[in-house]
Amino acid sequence: MDKIISQLKNIVGSGGISLDDAELKRFSRDTWVLSDLRDFLGAGPDSPMAMVSPANTEQLSSVVSLCFENAIPMIPYGAGSGVCGSIVGQHDALVISTGKMQGLIELDEENLLATFWAGTLGGEAERSIAKKGYTIGHWPQSIEISSVGGWLATRASGQYSTAYGNIEDVVFSFEAVLPDGRVYKSAHTPRAAAGPDLRQLLMGSEGTLGIFAKVTFSIRKQAAEKQTQAFYFEKFPLALQCVREVMTRGYRPPVIRLYDARESHRHFKDSCPKGQMMLIFLHEGEPEVVRAEASGVAAVCESFAASAAEQNAVEQWFERRNEVPSFRSLIEQGLIVDTIEVGAVWSRLHEVYERVMSAVAEVESVIAVSAHLSHAYKSGANLYFTIAAAPGTPEQMESIYFKFWDAAMRATLESGGGIAHHHGIGRVRKKYLEQELGAGGLSILKGIKASLDPGGLMNPGNLLP
Amino acid sequence: MDKIISQLKNIVGSGGISLDDAELKRFSRDTWVLSDLRDFLGAGPDSPMAMVSPANTEQLSSVVSLCFENAIPMIPYGAGSGVCGSIVGQHDALVISTGKMQGLIELDEENLLATFWAGTLGGEAERSIAKKGYTIGHWPQSIEISSVGGWLATRASGQYSTAYGNIEDVVFSFEAVLPDGRVYKSAHTPRAAAGPDLRQLLMGSEGTLGIFAKVTFSIRKQAAEKQTQAFYFEKFPLALQCVREVMTRGYRPPVIRLYDARESHRHFKDSCPKGQMMLIFLHEGEPEVVRAEASGVAAVCESFAASAAEQNAVEQWFERRNEVPSFRSLIEQGLIVDTIEVGAVWSRLHEVYERVMSAVAEVESVIAVSAHLSHAYKSGANLYFTIAAAPGTPEQMESIYFKFWDAAMRATLESGGGIAHHHGIGRVRKKYLEQELGAGGLSILKGIKASLDPGGLMNPGNLLP
Repeated sequence: MDKIISQLKNIVGSGGISLDDAELKRFSRDTWVLSDLRDFLGAGPDSPMAMVSPANTEQLSSVVSLCFENAIPMIPYGAGSGVCGSIVGQHDALVISTGKMQGLIELDEENLLATFWAGTLGGEAERSIAKKGYTIGHWPQSIEISSVGGWLATRASGQYSTAYGNIEDVVFSFEAVLPDGRVYKSAHTPRAAAGPDLRQLLMGSEGTLGIFAKVTFSIRKQAAEKQTQAFYFEKFPLALQCVREVMTRGYRPPVIRLYDARESHRHFKDSCPKGQMMLIFLHEGEPEVVRAEASGVAAVCESFAASAAEQNAVEQWFERRNEVPSFRSLIEQGLIVDTIEVGAVWSRLHEVYERVMSAVAEVESVIAVSAHLSHAYKSGANLYFTIAAAPGTPEQMESIYFKFWDAAMRATLESGGGIAHHHGIGRVRKKYLEQELGAGGLSILKGIKASLDPGGLMNPGNLLP
Repeated sequence: MDKIISQLKNIVGSGGISLDDAELKRFSRDTWVLSDLRDFLGAGPDSPMAMVSPANTEQLSSVVSLCFENAIPMIPYGAGSGVCGSIVGQHDALVISTGKMQGLIELDEENLLATFWAGTLGGEAERSIAKKGYTIGHWPQSIEISSVGGWLATRASGQYSTAYGNIEDVVFSFEAVLPDGRVYKSAHTPRAAAGPDLRQLLMGSEGTLGIFAKVTFSIRKQAAEKQTQAFYFEKFPLALQCVREVMTRGYRPPVIRLYDARESHRHFKDSCPKGQMMLIFLHEGEPEVVRAEASGVAAVCESFAASAAEQNAVEQWFERRNEVPSFRSLIEQGLIVDTIEVGAVWSRLHEVYERVMSAVAEVESVIAVSAHLSHAYKSGANLYFTIAAAPGTPEQMESIYFKFWDAAMRATLESGGGIAHHHGIGRVRKKYLEQELGAGGLSILKGIKASLDPGGLMNPGNLLP
């Protein structure tokens, strides 16, 4: 152990390794509410044996090689903003943080490419190119607290996904270190038919198949024109049909968000009559196209009996869109709260909504459940549920938590939905992964894991059931 | 061997297996020009031991399991339209054809999904939903002779890719049989963050990791309005910059094609002055958006000093766009001809063009080389070269062929391009695959192959160097 620490110091320098108790505690978890709860109850995750912060790909590769050769479990750590428990410390594991791999490496204006170190926070990354008139176009709610490498590791989605795609559509190429320390660098081409798309293997692997070192995004010029509009509906199914029709016609406003009555009242008290459902749009691009799209979309909404909402409704949403709740303060108030996002084809979506709502509401001490749609596709959309329970004592919170998750997951699967739209699997969903991927899919994934990480050293206990 | 044949008959029925010499000869190859040449010279590929045509996923799975258990090499066969030599018969191998797995299984209008048996020809698939007002939106030149399963196996691109994406963007889900006979069925959701996207492993595997059984596309309604326009340019680099600017502004006309002077003269004799380069566009969608996009794109072209071409230029192209040349008749005329498509970022594209053109032109007996751009992205585009050589004798053709391929591949790699945009790797490109994927990438791919197909039974000799 001392020998390993000294070898690690040789690689990253003594400033690149931490054995400090308080710091190790901080690196023992992500933003999973259950880690908050366990901390609150004094039973938080174990601290790792140490935390290293390599400064570049070469150091990262050497650290991983050393762990591989010495069978030391590794826990890759981006910015710790994940909410599914991908990071849970264990005393014999080394946390490998990308926290020192920071900043813009290259802005290639001719090819609309921007390359960042994987540890760069999203907001920093966006601002570093925004001042030159560009945007990554990927706006997760967590943008200020999540890293660009973490976006890839978890298959993140941003609020502008309807036009610009999810993270897999925004990524151009990357450099990553595999579980044995080898470096994989994907090709520098806009598209290839050269075997399977291997980038797609690491994206979504949640730290189990490699660690991102550098990420290159295919960026875009900031839009010449933006236009927002909002509508409200009396019935949720009709509003869903309206969103579907917008997508069917081929319109692609970057932002489409539909809130159920409870969330509409919460977010748009002043602009949406109680009991109605708010649907908001952001259109952006070249001015004539934006105007044509906005008026076309408005016509679709009107054909579904929607009423136009006040213009400032969307601005209100924009001002608050990146607020991230503190689970800990809710726990202190006696509430265990979480969000659960799932996906489904249009024909299953309302059933998923209804069944999750009622299954979760039936769980003891659940006091609120609500949902919105935030990512739309030609063939379906996501639903993002927010659930709050108020058990009698904090000690009851964990079992209630697993009960409402189980209710939501079962209701989703039984209604034909997919268990995870964009938060990932982590520990909270892994027992449902086989139903999502099928036995065939799970065996492919396990085979790949065994091939790339035969000792199961990289993020053990995460993702794979 | 007799025992295997009889077991196969038990699975697929005697009508599902062929031992007929002429038929086996036909299933010993795809549309690779070198197979034409070798046939012409009387040295074509070996015939396989037999050809089976399962009628459904269950039969397909049983056939593959039988081969897996008995270590029989398998050659998956779609419609045989591949041009890179993915299919080359060998006497001890079984060809597994999807030729009996035909037709539309389900048209799901609510979710804009259409599910086909993998052996369905593209044109048949498109027409089966076109009559209901839908389109797959995937228009490879080979549409009438390629199968929908083959589109996935090779990572195909269609002529409308700029708006609708390449095949990986059009596929919703699929069912495939893995090398050991297990069935993998991907989830029925529009998007998931549930581990790596395993679909992307089989797409592009060119028959080495599995056989597609059913394919579900995310289809679209036929566009309400279409508009075409064309422009010609004096200089190729300026025309490339113009296409880049169209993409940078966020316009997404389904078809963007730019021909160099030689190809412009060949395709648009009447509408493009000699020596100029033709750029054609198809816009489609909702009428107001189409009009806004078309006029915006025209303004961009004019800002690059382009001249508007006659309106019927694009119609001419549409009429002939799916003509596929007969390599055999060219060989009979003394010509060995092939097409080579590559990709590159914008800043490398003109250098790739210049260097491939001159490197290929220097190869002995090459009499013509020309190119067009047919798939554009924010960060780059493809280039599609057509090369003709007239060696003194047919016996010299094969070595000349490999020389011009090598010249094109080296010039592409040295200029920073990617070796394959949409035809795939097959046998003709496999020795360049390591340079495309990198040593890390190739080792990942080999690890996956070893994990899924430890005996190397599925399409041996293809894709992997």
